[in-house]
Amino acid sequence: MEPKATNLITTSHTVDIAMDTEVHRVEPPPRRSTFHKLQSRLKETFFPDDPLRQFKNQSLKTKFILAAQYIFPILQWGPNYNLKLLKSDVVSGLTIASLAIPQGISYAKLANLPPIVGLYSSFVPPLIYAVLGSSKDLAVGPVSIASLIMGSMLRQQVSPIKDPILFLQLAFSSTFFAGLFQSSLGFLRLGFIIDFLSKATLIGFMAGAAIIVSLQQLKSLLGIQHFTKKMGIVPVLTSVFHNTHEWSWQTILMGFCFLVLLLVTRHISIKKPKLFWVSAGAPLVSVIISTLLVYAFKAENHGISVIGKLQEGLNPPSWNMLRFDGSYLGLVIKTGLVTGIISLTEGIAVGRTFAALKNYQVDGNKEMIAIGLMNIAGSSTSCYVTTGAFCRSAVNHNAGCKTAVSNIVMAVTVMVTLLFLMPLFRYTPNVVLGAIIVTAVVGLIDVPAAGEIWRIDKFDFIVMVCTFFGVVFVSVEEGLAISVGLSIFKILLQITRPKTVRFGNIPGTDIYRDIRHYKEAVNVPGFLILGIEAPINFANSTYLKERIMRWVEEYESEDTKKQSGLKFVILDLSSVSAIDTNGVSFFKDLKMALEKRDLELVLVNPLGEVIEKLQRAENGEKFTRAECMFLTIGEAVIFLQSAFNKQSEA
Amino acid sequence: MEPKATNLITTSHTVDIAMDTEVHRVEPPPRRSTFHKLQSRLKETFFPDDPLRQFKNQSLKTKFILAAQYIFPILQWGPNYNLKLLKSDVVSGLTIASLAIPQGISYAKLANLPPIVGLYSSFVPPLIYAVLGSSKDLAVGPVSIASLIMGSMLRQQVSPIKDPILFLQLAFSSTFFAGLFQSSLGFLRLGFIIDFLSKATLIGFMAGAAIIVSLQQLKSLLGIQHFTKKMGIVPVLTSVFHNTHEWSWQTILMGFCFLVLLLVTRHISIKKPKLFWVSAGAPLVSVIISTLLVYAFKAENHGISVIGKLQEGLNPPSWNMLRFDGSYLGLVIKTGLVTGIISLTEGIAVGRTFAALKNYQVDGNKEMIAIGLMNIAGSSTSCYVTTGAFCRSAVNHNAGCKTAVSNIVMAVTVMVTLLFLMPLFRYTPNVVLGAIIVTAVVGLIDVPAAGEIWRIDKFDFIVMVCTFFGVVFVSVEEGLAISVGLSIFKILLQITRPKTVRFGNIPGTDIYRDIRHYKEAVNVPGFLILGIEAPINFANSTYLKERIMRWVEEYESEDTKKQSGLKFVILDLSSVSAIDTNGVSFFKDLKMALEKRDLELVLVNPLGEVIEKLQRAENGEKFTRAECMFLTIGEAVIFLQSAFNKQSEA
Repeated sequence: MEPKATNLITTSHTVDIAMDTEVHRVEPPPRRSTFHKLQSRLKETFFPDDPLRQFKNQSLKTKFILAAQYIFPILQWGPNYNLKLLKSDVVSGLTIASLAIPQGISYAKLANLPPIVGLYSSFVPPLIYAVLGSSKDLAVGPVSIASLIMGSMLRQQVSPIKDPILFLQLAFSSTFFAGLFQSSLGFLRLGFIIDFLSKATLIGFMAGAAIIVSLQQLKSLLGIQHFTKKMGIVPVLTSVFHNTHEWSWQTILMGFCFLVLLLVTRHISIKKPKLFWVSAGAPLVSVIISTLLVYAFKAENHGISVIGKLQEGLNPPSWNMLRFDGSYLGLVIKTGLVTGIISLTEGIAVGRTFAALKNYQVDGNKEMIAIGLMNIAGSSTSCYVTTGAFCRSAVNHNAGCKTAVSNIVMAVTVMVTLLFLMPLFRYTPNVVLGAIIVTAVVGLIDVPAAGEIWRIDKFDFIVMVCTFFGVVFVSVEEGLAISVGLSIFKILLQITRPKTVRFGNIPGTDIYRDIRHYKEAVNVPGFLILGIEAPINFANSTYLKERIMRWVEEYESEDTKKQSGLKFVILDLSSVSAIDTNGVSFFKDLKMALEKRDLELVLVNPLGEVIEKLQRAENGEKFTRAECMFLTIGEAVIFLQSAFNKQSEA
Repeated sequence: MEPKATNLITTSHTVDIAMDTEVHRVEPPPRRSTFHKLQSRLKETFFPDDPLRQFKNQSLKTKFILAAQYIFPILQWGPNYNLKLLKSDVVSGLTIASLAIPQGISYAKLANLPPIVGLYSSFVPPLIYAVLGSSKDLAVGPVSIASLIMGSMLRQQVSPIKDPILFLQLAFSSTFFAGLFQSSLGFLRLGFIIDFLSKATLIGFMAGAAIIVSLQQLKSLLGIQHFTKKMGIVPVLTSVFHNTHEWSWQTILMGFCFLVLLLVTRHISIKKPKLFWVSAGAPLVSVIISTLLVYAFKAENHGISVIGKLQEGLNPPSWNMLRFDGSYLGLVIKTGLVTGIISLTEGIAVGRTFAALKNYQVDGNKEMIAIGLMNIAGSSTSCYVTTGAFCRSAVNHNAGCKTAVSNIVMAVTVMVTLLFLMPLFRYTPNVVLGAIIVTAVVGLIDVPAAGEIWRIDKFDFIVMVCTFFGVVFVSVEEGLAISVGLSIFKILLQITRPKTVRFGNIPGTDIYRDIRHYKEAVNVPGFLILGIEAPINFANSTYLKERIMRWVEEYESEDTKKQSGLKFVILDLSSVSAIDTNGVSFFKDLKMALEKRDLELVLVNPLGEVIEKLQRAENGEKFTRAECMFLTIGEAVIFLQSAFNKQSEA
């Protein structure tokens, strides 16, 4: 009778000698207390950037200065600020101001707010960001997507036309909660939550939002008076084609001309990035020309709607307009949450993009606190949700900004406008604002990126498409929820069905690789070598056990012809980063099932955590015996082969 | 000036020669079409057990027979059935019948249903399971936890005392949906959903449910008439101590005696498994003795409540009692869903446990279909939710059952009882049923298992404790939901913050291992070798980039003293089983950031999917050049060192 593999290697005395001379032992990791482990786990989760690193080994005074600089980055770069930097910042600040003024007015209208709120929001928040923020390129102000979301979510319950005051109150309150939420994420170091909006999600979402925003502009561009309150593509198009009698040819003509002008200038700046000022200046120029035209031809009497009178003066305080009472509390918290996350995502992404280009670091959690505090302050000074806007930041960067002073310059320019130039906007036609918005959001539709996603990852493409259609046909929030749900589902599916691969030896080496990937890899007779590519936990332990037993059965059914006689199942655990209690049971069950087939289970390169848990759970199974654990597959195979041969000879 | 690492190896001619002679190339995996990949992914997800394996290369007739045997496992073992097997099955069948009859009556009362429904449910479902099921040990019938959940969920909206008919209708309808849901999971091969109830969850849940169930029995055990309808520990204890005047000393005395008797017999059987029949027979003996006592002393007139008259006859049809209309549809679907999943989990776990002991396979998805169909049929024949009961299956196993015929024997015994013995239960006191339930559920509290979870995995312990307190203090459904949520949160956290470890060389070998785990591992000057232990995706790409840059900074800050001159960052990707589009961007961003520091990024052992995606995304980055990708860390280090030295000499 053939010797049983199960009691093969433990009884042989020669084994121990061989062990000591040839094979590297698998050791348990250095002991650490539960508290120490918890501490390092918490540190990795919440302080992966180790923000207190620079405080180590410093005097108390230096620590104090570092802390002040940490909280107010302006103290870091402020002292070294000079005239040369100021020159660059003034140029870029004026450039973004020329873009921020028309866009501010337009985006406020997109959020169903009075146009002047858009200007207010381009004054206070940039000043606060300049003190607290760590990005040098971020141009702060209202942005299209957050404006759209806030407008549409609030409008579901309150009409901005019938109840303008209440609507404004809710907008400020939502801004307050958005800021509170953003800064809490930063304080609680939960910034990773925004990582759950994957690239695919964001591309699909932004394209969908751009469509929605553009469709909303049909109201201004066609001069329609009675427009639907809904955001979906179906009600908007129904509304457009049911109101053809309201279409105004003067408006359409004007809108068409300015839209073409703006799109052409945008195209020029994309083709030649040095001519960034062409597209940067175009909106202001359009506003000026269109206003003059309206004024000259008294076009407001010919069906072209205009902004109307705007109040002069700086931001009035608005803390008395924050409403935390009863019936609308749920609405403003929800709106604050969604707009907060979305605008945070945009702001952080923009900050990181330009930081990478200029090779400096942006601390995500710190940025969240800065953006959050800026919105909290904004909600008390008649501002609605603001963040770093992508297109304006790009212009800022191209115009050669050096520090956050460009934001201060912009804010001062807006201040001057608010104090002295408001009457000039009286005759600005709404249609030109619509054209400015459409031009701004067209850039959010990123077809090449969508193509690349299709090439790289089909599932991500599905996520993107679902987000897009969810946003366009259902709603902005539900589109996002579907997308995040799908993304998490994909991760769970990967965990539930981890890959197991069969390894073969690459001839002439002790390298073992996936036999399906490397065609030259060959099977070692008597050994089934498997790699598991995921942590083993409750979600996959049952699957893994069944899958491994199927590998064994497949091996044995192939093997009936070759008679190699399977003796050992080697599991390479290099990729098993963690196991839980179900994972421990997995090893016990697998060992038992294999022993019933006279097979020996051998583990290769288990990581620290896995060794520890197996040791703690050990109850006669002896996984962690030296004869069942090896550091490399090569050593395991050589050792087991020689032990087996000696046993057979004896 | 020192040569820059970034253009170091690509320009040297000697490189190519070295490559060809010493180093194993990383190859892209063999090409497969998207369709083929999707197909194999779907197969791994839904058919991991490859159920059609045995149909390959068979004649049409054999295929037909195999299919019939697949659907009706009785056709597989039936033809070989013999008298010897029958003898064993009759013994075990009679044993479990003696347990099933008192437990059936008790559990029906636990579900607030007429006691006879418990007997009905021990008649039809076992017969159906005997034909469809693949477990040889499962003893089918009502179980405590599913009974508790159904009773408590339905009672939230309908009173079983005021509206007994409606309550019964809803119970049957819930059973129908439970069966529909269970068999759908099996048909759609979604059986892995029950894996999301981890071991920790189940232990916490069952202990909590046992407490809840036992507390409910205080009504019978103390003889209280007016008892709360709620399940939580607080209202039940309040109810018990507010109704002390209703306590009946006769009932308490009787209950105490039988509870002690039952617990003692249970203890005997645990200590000596051969005496399994002591605890198996004790409930029936208790019922008989207590009934005789009540009858003899006319104790029903002295405050001891009895079951009362039970109708003779077999299961009446109940398909006309299924309600799919309006107001209660949501309730019955929800109840069906929860009881369906819970009872499925118990049934599958019991089946797998005993299959592993006897070394045969149980197909999870097939079992789900069998249990589901059994419940659908049950809902039309006056049965409520049934599944494989753990304690009765253990008795069945210990009594030496060989096939599902033991279920048939049990069903026939129950049939005889239903037809002829029902009047005997008239004087059976409710208090003895309470004692039977308490004895049965005490076994669900598994303190040693909880201790082992504490030893192995602290987070799992937290999950367990949360489940337990959730069930005891909040509600059964919410306790479960909290627990599943926590378990998924843990997985997401692992993905969001994957471990990165720094590798060092084990001297005298080409093995590289975690430098913190293996103290003998040493750093290779000029190289930072890192391993990433998770798929790289949207949830962790930002973190990983920052974490790797921190490793680089730490290396460089240590290195100022040693002057080793970091040149290469090697990423060991053996454990990176998958990447998505964010993962691809991660490599691009990381390469750019490292190049800004004059560091070269080198990848080691990327797996097939990673290579493919990097190739498809390549846009000048050239990750997949042979000089940037190596099969092992050892080869990468040797090659890069020699290339660097040659370059420095030149």
